[in-house]
This record gives sequence, structure tokens and C-alpha cells, in this order.
Amino acid sequence: MTKSSEGLTVKKDNFSEWYSQIIEKAEIVDLRLGIKGFITIRPWGAMLMENMFQLYEQELQKKGHLPVIMPSVIPEANLKKEASHIQGFTPEVFWLKTGEGEEKLALRPTSETVFTPMFGLWVRSHRDLPMKLYQKGSVFRYDTKATRPLIRGREFQWIEAHDAFATKEEAIKQTQEDIDTTEKVMHQKFGIPFLPMKRPEWDKFAGAEYTIGSDVLMPDGKLIQQPSTHLMGQKFSRAFGAIFKNEDGKEDYLWTTAYGPCISRILASVISTHGDDKGLVLPYCISPLKVMIVPIYNLKNKLKVLKYCKEISAKLNELNIKSMLNDSEKRPGEKFHESELRGIPFRLEIGEKEMKSKSLTLFTRDTEKKEKLSAQSLNKIKDLGKAYDERIRKKADKFMEGKITNCKTKEDIKKALNSGKIARVNFCSVDKDGEKCAGHVEKELGAEVRGTLADKKEKSSGKCTICNKPAKEVVYVGKSY
Amino acid sequence: MTKSSEGLTVKKDNFSEWYSQIIEKAEIVDLRLGIKGFITIRPWGAMLMENMFQLYEQELQKKGHLPVIMPSVIPEANLKKEASHIQGFTPEVFWLKTGEGEEKLALRPTSETVFTPMFGLWVRSHRDLPMKLYQKGSVFRYDTKATRPLIRGREFQWIEAHDAFATKEEAIKQTQEDIDTTEKVMHQKFGIPFLPMKRPEWDKFAGAEYTIGSDVLMPDGKLIQQPSTHLMGQKFSRAFGAIFKNEDGKEDYLWTTAYGPCISRILASVISTHGDDKGLVLPYCISPLKVMIVPIYNLKNKLKVLKYCKEISAKLNELNIKSMLNDSEKRPGEKFHESELRGIPFRLEIGEKEMKSKSLTLFTRDTEKKEKLSAQSLNKIKDLGKAYDERIRKKADKFMEGKITNCKTKEDIKKALNSGKIARVNFCSVDKDGEKCAGHVEKELGAEVRGTLADKKEKSSGKCTICNKPAKEVVYVGKSY
Repeated sequence: MTKSSEGLTVKKDNFSEWYSQIIEKAEIVDLRLGIKGFITIRPWGAMLMENMFQLYEQELQKKGHLPVIMPSVIPEANLKKEASHIQGFTPEVFWLKTGEGEEKLALRPTSETVFTPMFGLWVRSHRDLPMKLYQKGSVFRYDTKATRPLIRGREFQWIEAHDAFATKEEAIKQTQEDIDTTEKVMHQKFGIPFLPMKRPEWDKFAGAEYTIGSDVLMPDGKLIQQPSTHLMGQKFSRAFGAIFKNEDGKEDYLWTTAYGPCISRILASVISTHGDDKGLVLPYCISPLKVMIVPIYNLKNKLKVLKYCKEISAKLNELNIKSMLNDSEKRPGEKFHESELRGIPFRLEIGEKEMKSKSLTLFTRDTEKKEKLSAQSLNKIKDLGKAYDERIRKKADKFMEGKITNCKTKEDIKKALNSGKIARVNFCSVDKDGEKCAGHVEKELGAEVRGTLADKKEKSSGKCTICNKPAKEVVYVGKSY
Repeated sequence: MTKSSEGLTVKKDNFSEWYSQIIEKAEIVDLRLGIKGFITIRPWGAMLMENMFQLYEQELQKKGHLPVIMPSVIPEANLKKEASHIQGFTPEVFWLKTGEGEEKLALRPTSETVFTPMFGLWVRSHRDLPMKLYQKGSVFRYDTKATRPLIRGREFQWIEAHDAFATKEEAIKQTQEDIDTTEKVMHQKFGIPFLPMKRPEWDKFAGAEYTIGSDVLMPDGKLIQQPSTHLMGQKFSRAFGAIFKNEDGKEDYLWTTAYGPCISRILASVISTHGDDKGLVLPYCISPLKVMIVPIYNLKNKLKVLKYCKEISAKLNELNIKSMLNDSEKRPGEKFHESELRGIPFRLEIGEKEMKSKSLTLFTRDTEKKEKLSAQSLNKIKDLGKAYDERIRKKADKFMEGKITNCKTKEDIKKALNSGKIARVNFCSVDKDGEKCAGHVEKELGAEVRGTLADKKEKSSGKCTICNKPAKEVVYVGKSY
């Protein structure tokens, strides 16, 4: 945090340009290595992601998951075992050049094809079940489309949880638990609301029985898929012969699920959801720094003020409130600007007045209000941090209000989409036979059928908005990344 | 930890077989995916490594390093910029197959060639210096030699710290600080003693001015290189044009260093140094579980005992002492065996007697002694854990005593090596002109000239033990992995 950063030159209304500027100016990423789809994540972004990883892992561990570290590569033979999986992923795979006679290896695009055979080895009987594992790290997709930092890339940082069960019911329950994990972490902690969408048949994960994605609405009215969970059923376990002895002593194939929160991509939503015209607004629970201390001094009282600020900083750190004393030679105004651009939740402005009264000036990033905080009550910042997180989450929730519009005609849908909304429409089918209508939506409206609500069965009465046949489903249509 | 694990069938004397058994039976790794040089790290190993990473990162951050996340791939053009670097690494690189017209990409074997150009962009003047960064993650080497789990592989998990300075003096000082980091973490915390060895000219890192490795003696008398630190000088910054404005306002090339603790490999030393005939002996500070609670009950008092054990377990967790109540249906003896095989520092055996007297039976893994611990003094386990760590560290230090032998002839060296020792010998030169003698050592004695002591200048008076010319140096010779 040594260099002066230029401020944003566009407002958030101009979202695309705002996003491009903020990720670089707030020193989250750097694109100047110039490798298509591969980015550098700078310390501010890396520390932020580390905190996000930790909260996610805590929740997964609380729910009985244990970490593992699998190879970053997958042998061709494994990748090809499950037919629909390889069909979906082949074009997106980076292959390694290996020596003659050596096995062909791919950089993992996802790891079902190494987890499943290991489940087969590790699980002998129903007594070993459930087995819930996860790993964190990079995955790679040879994406030929346009890439966008943190949103779409060729390498991204995620967690993939893979679970094995004795029955289908338990596996289905796991996918519900996964939605709860998204709710507990991404929504409750990071403040990002989402719609859990059961994807149409044609849009599910390659190899899954069903996929539930979580759709987040970005400020530009486009949807981005955040953590998705997949019921693999017995598809992968059959392909890999991953069997176990059930309660009746009979052999059966394992029931598996997978859940994939992509931390780098969730960071894109954190930035986009909470940020404003001045910069980032980071949730207190994941901000690398909770407080920036800005000393206000003149030539005469400089040493005295700095000494007092150091004491305050030490006290904060003792209280486990991560703070940073900004004692550089810059003017206070520049430091204010920097703390706002970086999205640090609180700023303590401390000059001679504050020193004497032992009453500090506390600036809060989201409300941009200043208030007094007694030097004796520094611990109060933790509660203020909780209230702050709740406030920005509620603000994000509020943004979602009224963003879903019932649409009866294509014109309605078009209007909804153009005003940054999600269209709720009657639709013929989310099975294979609905794909044609989805194709129409894509071509004519430039939007996607995202699926049906996963946590609530919605009844459709009318006719399909596209083909006019009886509508079996209520689906959500939106523009997407 | 649900399956019964078979115990070790060999003693540690038979080190090679013992190592192969313990890493699988203590469920650290699994090799059954069968990909040469790529292994699966199971939950016990993954949690252990996570703790090791954390202690290392804490120390690096304390010393002013900040995390970054660089791409896992490196463009060919970057890799080829520094001539001696690419010469050293080319044969060891995995190349990716990319599309026509696309840049050739390698999986990173190490990341100087992406850190240096970024330093060039991030550092403008001496005011931005020092800049100390690190990243953790996988690196890849296309090693065609025999691989050995955790010790030599094609993918390994490490931290690489890259630092930039305004002067050579500061850069040299950094390499000393890096040795201190190895001392503080690997030795003081993990209990692994090491010899800091300044490598001979022919054995330094490809592109470095000098390399200091830390050599750890394994139980079979072979040396393994643990964290090494490198003075890159201005070699990489010149290749990448990474300049800054110095205090005089003049442009100069950055002075850079690199430090690379390989966590997966250090784990191999932790396992090998402390383990015994019964299994692992894990340092308290990194063991995923500090205590295993084993309930001792009969049909009559089972519920009562289990309830009490749960209370103890809850108290331990409240005290932040990670414990696990082993309430499976196995016999206590099997559970004892399991806790010893896994290397858990403490075991609490709790039956009706312990319940009534509120005096628990505490078993300590390294001493294999049982003692009484009041149920009121559970917090004492933290101090016992500290003492335990100190004890196993001292034991490891003791193993090193007398392991370095002064040798005056080739016969002496042979004898030293055959009895699992390191030979200290007069040697002509560690510059290029000494390489021929080192070749002799390798061919005739099957050993390596590891270098000179890095933290102490030792004077040589005699003649080179190999060529009989005047000896400029005192070097250390050992067998190695």
C-alpha cells in the first residue's frame, strides 16, 4: 500500500468500465503479464481470497468435510471413463506434452474422475459412509471465449467438495445442504444474495443427474453463476466401479455429489455487489484490514500524534482487530481516498484534538458517516463490524427486490431484460423437449433459461411463452456472463 | 479415521521400507491413482500440511512478506529471458498444448520469470522497496528420475517467496533472514535440525549468484535438501528490464532473492525424523489432533462413560485444544494403536475409574508414558505440548551429534558415508575449477559435495582430499536423495 493509486474516473452506472477500473486501481488484480485467461492476484486480493477460503472451509468442515490434496493432473483414461462427462469437457481441457510411451495427462478442469476411483478404494462398507471431502486450489479450462478477470478465465481458484453416500436420498439431501452452505457463507457472510436455480436438462453439469446453480444478479442486470451443486447419482461410480457393501451386505454403487464454490469468481460478485463510485466496500468479515488509522498532524505535534496512533494500533491488534497505521508522507486526504478505494470498513482519524479528548473520529465506509469512538471502547468496533456486514447485506438484498418480473409475452421479457431484470415465465419443459424453446430465447432475446427455483416447487398453469404449448414449468430467464 | 489400519510390519532400522509403509498406513498419502510423480494427499496429511503452511506463512508475514497468487503457467518468452535459468529448467518443464497461433505455455517449475517483470511494474522508486512477496501452491517439474512420495515428485506443494531490494547488501541480508526463517519454523517448530550449506558453483540454482540450501540428515544417512534461498542479484532484473529509481534519482536494476520452503517435502522430514517403530510422532504444534480420547467402558457403564468423555472433549475444544472422541465400536487396544500410528501427541483414556476420581489417564506419544491429569487442569495440555515439542526437537538434535566426521582420505569418507555420516573434508575449490573433483566424489564414492557452511567461514589449511592440490575450502560430503 505504498503507491498512490489514482481514483476511479467512472461511476458505477457505467458498470463494465467501473469493474475494469476498480479491480486494477484497488490493486486486486494485475493483467499485465498478458497471458489470456491467467491473471495475477495482488496482495490485497490474495489476502481477501484467503479470508474467503477460510470462512468457506470452516463451514464445510463444520458440516463434516475433510480436506484432501489431489493431483492437478488427470490421466486421459480417467477423464474418458464417464461418457457424457468427457463429451462436455474435452474441448475445454489443457493437455500436457508428456514423453513418448507416457500416459496422456490433462490439467484438471474438475476432479470427479480422480475422486470417484479413490472413493471406490477408501469406502468398503456403509459404515465408512458418508465420506465428505474437499480440496482447494486451481482448476483449468481451455476456454476460447472472451475472458474477464475473476469472472471467466482459464485458471481459477476454487473449492471442490466431493461426497459419497449409501443412498440416493442422502445424496439429494447433500445437494440441499450445499445450497445451505452457499446461503450461510456467500449470502450471510459475504452479503451476496442468490437464486438457487435447478438447471434445465440441457444446461446441467456434464455427467450429472441434476445441477443446481446459484445465480447472482450483477449491477448491469446480467446473471453470474456462483456455487453449483450436482447430484452425480451413480453415474461416476458405475463408470469407475466404485462399489460398497450396503446394510444388507450386498454390493452397490456409491451415490455421489459435487459442490464447487469458486472463490475468485465470488470475489467478482463481492466487488460488484458492494462497491460504489468511490471504490470497494468490503465486508468486515473478510476485509484484510478492518481499520486504517490516519494520523492528522503538523510539524510541531507529529511525533506525539504518531506515538499515540501507534498505541491505538497496538491495542487494536491486541483485540484481534486487524489495523494498519498509515504513517506514510502522503496528505491525510490522499490516505482517506486510499482507504475508501480499498474498501476498508473503518477509518480512525486521529489528531491532537482526538488525542486530548481520547475520543477518536471513526469513519464508516458504507455510510460515509463520521462519529466519535472513545479510545477506551475500541472493542466496540467488532460489533460495529457485525452491524456493518448486516447493513451491506440488507442493501444487497434490497437491490434484488422487484428484480423478478412476471412476463407473459416475448415483448414483456425483452422489456424486463432491458431494464436489468429477471423474467419469470411459463415454459413448456426443462427436459430435453424444451431445449428448442430455450434456443429461441437465446437467439431472439439474447438471454438464457436459467432453470426452475430449486428450493420451492412452482406450479405453472398457462402456456409456454415461446411455443404456446402447455407450460409444465415456471422458469427464470436472464442475460448472463 | 473410520477404518482400522494395519500396523507397521517393519522397524525403522529398515528405513526405506518403513517410510513406504508409514506414509500409506498412517493415511498421509495414497499412490493408487498411479500417475508417476503425482500423489494423493489424504485428510490426515492435508490437515498436517495446512498447519505447516500456516506456521510458515505467519513467520513470512511477520518478516514483512505479503501473499500474491500468480498464474500456474509461464509463457515461453518469459521462461527464456534469463539464459542460465532456461538452460537449467528446460528439460524439467511440462509444456501445455495450446491452440495454433497461441503462445507456448509451461507449467511453472518456479516463478522468478513472472515475479521479476511484475516487480519491474510495481516498483518505481527506492521508496517502494523492499518489496517482499510470496505465494503458495503447486509447482511442476518434468522429472524423469525415480520419484518418491513427498520427497521427489512431478508436482509438489510449496511456498516461494520473492523479494526485491535497492542494494546488494540488503539482498544478501535477506538470504540470511531466510535461513533464520528455516531455523524458526523448520527447526524450532517442526523439530528438524539442518545444515545451511552454501552450494558449490556447479550446484546452484539456475540463474542465481549463489544458493544456500538446508541439508537435513535422514535416518538412512542420506541428505535431503530442504528450503533453499538464492541471491539472484541483478541477473533476472537485467533480463526483464526491472528497474527502479535509487536514492540518487538514478535508474538501477533491482536486486532480487528467492526462498522456497517445500511443505510436502518438509513433511517427509517430519515423518522420518520423529517417527518410530509404532508410527508417526507428530509435533504438537502441527498435529491435526492434539488429543485422542479413548473411552473405556463395559455394557453397563457405556452411556455414562461416553457422556463424560463428550464433556471432556467439549471442554478441550473450548480451550482450543483440538481433540477427537474415538467412539467407534473398536476395542480400546485398536484405538490405542490407531492414535500411535497417526502420531497424535496425547491420548486420554477415560473409564469409570477416571470418571469417579476426575483424574484422567494421559498417554504421551513420544515417551509412551502414562500419567494422571486432573479433569480440572485440561489447559495444562498446552504446556505439556510445548514441552513435548521441545523434547522431540532435542532428540532430533541429538541424532545429529557426532554425525559430522573429519575425513582425511577417500577411505575415511567411504567409512563415514557407510556408517550414515557426513564427511567434513578439505577440498580444492567450490568454484568451477572444483567440479572435476566433485565428479570424482560422485563416481567413486556415490556421494555429493554439498557445499560449505553458510553461517560460518571455515578455514582450510591442508590439501584437497581428492586431487591433493591446496584446499581452499572445507566442504561437506554426503549421500543424498
